[in-house]
Order: sequence, then C-alpha cells, then structure tokens
Amino acid sequence: MTVPAYRRLSVEQRRSQLLSTALRLFARLPPEEVSLEDVASEAGVSRPLVYRYFPGGKQQLYEAALRSAADELEQCFDEPHAGPLTDRLARALGRYMAFIEEHDAGFTALLRGGSVVETSRTSAIVDEVRRQAAAQILSHLVVEPAGPRLSMTVRTWISSVEAASLIWLDEGKQLPRAELRDLLLDQLMAALVATGARDEQTAAVVRLAAEAEGPDGRLADLARRVVPVVTPAAHLL
Amino acid sequence: MTVPAYRRLSVEQRRSQLLSTALRLFARLPPEEVSLEDVASEAGVSRPLVYRYFPGGKQQLYEAALRSAADELEQCFDEPHAGPLTDRLARALGRYMAFIEEHDAGFTALLRGGSVVETSRTSAIVDEVRRQAAAQILSHLVVEPAGPRLSMTVRTWISSVEAASLIWLDEGKQLPRAELRDLLLDQLMAALVATGARDEQTAAVVRLAAEAEGPDGRLADLARRVVPVVTPAAHLL
Repeated sequence: MTVPAYRRLSVEQRRSQLLSTALRLFARLPPEEVSLEDVASEAGVSRPLVYRYFPGGKQQLYEAALRSAADELEQCFDEPHAGPLTDRLARALGRYMAFIEEHDAGFTALLRGGSVVETSRTSAIVDEVRRQAAAQILSHLVVEPAGPRLSMTVRTWISSVEAASLIWLDEGKQLPRAELRDLLLDQLMAALVATGARDEQTAAVVRLAAEAEGPDGRLADLARRVVPVVTPAAHLL
Repeated sequence: MTVPAYRRLSVEQRRSQLLSTALRLFARLPPEEVSLEDVASEAGVSRPLVYRYFPGGKQQLYEAALRSAADELEQCFDEPHAGPLTDRLARALGRYMAFIEEHDAGFTALLRGGSVVETSRTSAIVDEVRRQAAAQILSHLVVEPAGPRLSMTVRTWISSVEAASLIWLDEGKQLPRAELRDLLLDQLMAALVATGARDEQTAAVVRLAAEAEGPDGRLADLARRVVPVVTPAAHLL
C-alpha cells in the first residue's frame, strides 16, 4: 500500500478540501457509487485521514457535503430588499440556476433522494433549503406573515423551479438557461395573479410590484406579451 | 405461536388483500416501521403465507404496494376528451386530491422517498406516475407533440400539485380540498398564459381553451376575478 504524500493544510482547510472533493464526486456519481477510497484518492490523501475528519464514514461525509451544498443554495436566495421585485427575483433565480448547472448530477442526486444513503436527516437538509428559499422570497413580497394561499403559492413555485431544473439537466438543457430563468419568473408572477384572484393579501403583492415598476421593467415586458394571449378570451368577460 | 385461521381466497384475491393491507399500513407509518409481521397480523394470515406471495420480503411487498398505488394515481388523470378543458382538468385533479386525502401518510411516504427501502426502482415508479400524468394532461391540450416550453410548463405544474398536496397534508389541510383544487387549476391556466407569452404553441392552447368556454365556465370566472388584480398594472402597458 502506498500512502500518498500530502500537502500540509490546517484542520479547517483540510476539512473544506475533503468536502469540496466529495461534492465534486457526488456531482458526477450517485452517492452509492462513491467510496471513501475515491474521495481519499481524489483528494490525494490516505483513507484513514478521511476517517479522521469524518469518523462516521461515507454517511457523515455525504451529509456534510449535502449541508455545504445546501448552505450555498440558500445563499443564492439572499438578495437585498431594493429595486423592482422582478429584478431581485431574477438575480436570485439566476444564481440558483448557475449553481445547479455547475453541480449538475450532484444536484440531481441531492434533490431526487432515493439513494442508499438517503435518510430522514438528509431529507431534512433538502427540506430546510426549500423552507429557507420560500422564507427569503416571501420576505420580498410581504412585511406581515404570509397567509396560507400566498405561502402555498410561493412554496409550490419553488417545487416547480426544482422540477424544472431537474428536467432541464436530465434532458440536455433544451432551453437556454436565461430563458428558463425568465420563464420561471414569469410563472411566479402569473401564479401570484391567479392566487390574487381569490386572496386579497396576494392581490396586494401584485399591486405593489406593479407600482414599483416602470414601462421598461420585466413586469411591463411580461404584461405586453400576455395581452395578445388573453385577448381571444375577452368574450368571457 | 398461534397461526390465525384464515378465510379461503383465490390467489388473486389473496394477493390483492395483502397489497391493500400493506398500502393501509404504509399509509399510516413510514415503510421502515412496517414489518412483514404487521402485514400478516393485520391481514389475519401467517408470516410464511405473506412470504409465499412476496418471496422478496418487505422490499418486494413495498414495491408491489407502490405499483398498485401508482396505478390508481395514474387512473385519476384518465379523463374523456370531451367538454371544456378546465372542467376535464378539474375532474382529474379532484380525483387525485381525493386519492391523496384517502392515503394521506402513505402518499407522503411514497412521494417523499428517502426511506430505507427506497431504491432507484421505487423512484422509477413514482417518476412514471409523473410522466403519465403529464402525458395525459398534454393529450387534452395539444394533438401534435408538445414542444419543450409547453411540456416544461405542464410537468412543472405537476410537481407543484405534488408539493401542494404534501404541504396541505403536512399542515393540517388549511384550505378546503375543493379550494386547493381550484387554486391549482387556476395556476395551471395562469402558467399556460405566461408560457404562451413566449411560445406560440402554448398561446394556441389558451386560445382553444377560451373558445370552448362560455361566460358561465371556470375560465370566465377566473378571467373576471383576475381583472381587478391586474388593473393596477395597466400603466405598464
């Protein structure tokens, strides 16, 4: 057995090197196909060293890697409360889509679950990302607590973003990334309008968003493109 | 050890009795907490009898129960191609929501995955339900094959229905079931309008749906409720 010579790193540096190595491997392969040996060899260290940092073995390493990816994902939705709503959301969604494109297979494995190392703890990490993303988006929409209809609308939209990302990666990115981002953003605004049709709190969100935007904004662009689509339904009014 | 006396059933009846017993148990408890003994005792038969029908043990029983729930779920979306689009979708969605309410925790376990007996095979069953549901809905929207934008819109909507169902069950059904159904249906129509704003095929779907409905229909009702929500955005046009 050869033990590769390795660079001297601080404990923190080594830990973060092992985590990013693991993330890279989990990004290429389903968790069940990644072994601690693979992580050690890819990081250029010995297997016992990996165990020293992650005594719980692969399960602990996987959860730590997932936790670190989850932290990065949550940061995507961290956006200052300034400027038109749709611009803020476009920036957050743009960061999210860049992240998932970078992590590709790892993101798919992460969100799909269903792997041999999946447990209620790993599902809890993924759920926490969804909850955080919803809370951050809601903080841009309302000051007061969101009622069940508005909250449901934002949370189901987050699921549809997740699903769209998985489909997009699975099927060879049929749409350009920026177009998918804009489509998903348009769908959130459309969902808010639909919910606003039966919920005053959500209607107020749409009203405030529209007031804050001008004719050169994203909402104006969407509104102009929607008019010809809904005009044939004018006889229904 | 007592072996309960059991009724004489045909092979097919026995198999289906064991499956529905298993589904009922998986509906109450996460799969890892259900044992073959539980299934045997709940069905009033011996453990060896359960093994005779499912020699692969719990994993095989779980997959068969999942398969049978999946078949039922797929049937929810089976709807004749007649009458206004929104009525057809409301019936399909109504059956789906009745199904998930009936199976409650089992539905949650099924869709959440992340259990000890979850494998790529069980994920494939759940994915197949999603694909079938999307195909059935698309068959009501277009005759020709759906392009990537329309297809993405329907598939992400299915994910948001799934997510809404899980949230609804998790959080004690804050909205009445019929209201959630109508909200989700409105959101599909809104999503189609938003996608139609950048995709001619989807715009044609909206046009045809609107043409087939009268002023007493669901789409007219939605259109009238949407007008006051979007009126404050009129300055954007």
